Amino acid sequence: MGKSRRVSMAVIRRLPKYYRYLEELLEKDITRISSKELSRLTGFTASQIRQDLNNFGGFGQQGYGYNVEELRNALGKILGLDRKYYTIIVGAGNIGQAIANYKGFQDEGFEVLALFDKNPKLIGLKIRDIEIKDVDSLEEFIAENEVDIGVICTPKEYSQDTADRLVKAGVKAIWNFAPNDIKVPEDVVVENVHLSESLFTLSYLLKCYSEQE
Amino acid sequence: MGKSRRVSMAVIRRLPKYYRYLEELLEKDITRISSKELSRLTGFTASQIRQDLNNFGGFGQQGYGYNVEELRNALGKILGLDRKYYTIIVGAGNIGQAIANYKGFQDEGFEVLALFDKNPKLIGLKIRDIEIKDVDSLEEFIAENEVDIGVICTPKEYSQDTADRLVKAGVKAIWNFAPNDIKVPEDVVVENVHLSESLFTLSYLLKCYSEQE
Repeated sequence: MGKSRRVSMAVIRRLPKYYRYLEELLEKDITRISSKELSRLTGFTASQIRQDLNNFGGFGQQGYGYNVEELRNALGKILGLDRKYYTIIVGAGNIGQAIANYKGFQDEGFEVLALFDKNPKLIGLKIRDIEIKDVDSLEEFIAENEVDIGVICTPKEYSQDTADRLVKAGVKAIWNFAPNDIKVPEDVVVENVHLSESLFTLSYLLKCYSEQE
Repeated sequence: MGKSRRVSMAVIRRLPKYYRYLEELLEKDITRISSKELSRLTGFTASQIRQDLNNFGGFGQQGYGYNVEELRNALGKILGLDRKYYTIIVGAGNIGQAIANYKGFQDEGFEVLALFDKNPKLIGLKIRDIEIKDVDSLEEFIAENEVDIGVICTPKEYSQDTADRLVKAGVKAIWNFAPNDIKVPEDVVVENVHLSESLFTLSYLLKCYSEQE
């Protein structure tokens, strides 16, 4: 197991946030930032930021702060953003099509090779230049193409079966948008986006604030 | 501040998960579950589940476990799912349209009243039966309709301005899909869905697992 693997998930989830803030600073042509300013910007304490970054070697210098571009590039490398990822999307419904349509991911190196669906009305259509293929050809496609990430956008009834097929075909990373959890072997990574859970968290918080008034 | 407001965000984020698992059990006509089985199902320890639920009063009985429907209903109430929420979506691009199209949220009581966009090509179109309106009419619409939740699906350049307008018009809850953070007054709740951060977490984990081989 690589050294960085022992870093806690809480730290890991803050890294993309730091990266995003640094991107925004670069867009504003800000080349250097103190840990204090970075703290104010991100909402994390300066010592938290230092500790997080120390997991990956030292960045920043006493009295100077951080070189924004250097730190952005270093974080990009840590996050694995210094390479290209080939993705496929299974389930060409609302969310699947929205992700295929979103060019922001492509700009960051995540290229969608194909969508898959079982609906004959969708098969053969194109989202941007990306074809919707018959899900029956999923294994064949993965065998013939390098696929790094499988995005599951199916209804929950099909998510586990889809995950099983992706894993069996050799896909090692799954981005799961289906509203349930999927089981995969230990050497496969899964990142879930459970939109309903996010919405229910919001309704909970809204309820608490209303009760307070 | 209501009592339940002091519950930590970590606990709060587990509640929708419990709710989801209980829904799934009910769909399978399972009426009763031991804390041990619930632990196996959710991946949380039985003592963690008990502690979490104890924040909201006791559920379950020694030697019997939990009545699935009762606990589902109780959790639904805690999450504020025993009422209807009226939502509007600002930004009728890929994600905005996908959310408007997704009927699952409506089934849980979240009704989309309208979408808003500034693109003249989109204004007047309908997603299902939901009209895309001119974003210039946002304040007028909120004044004339009960709006509980504003969903921000704009590019990041417009997210803060959109949040300011929603808040000024009286909206107290924001579901933010724009890839940056927004600032709101203390009496407004925000729940972020940062898809890029989720994707970068996946690429980080994939990188770590690959290095391990």
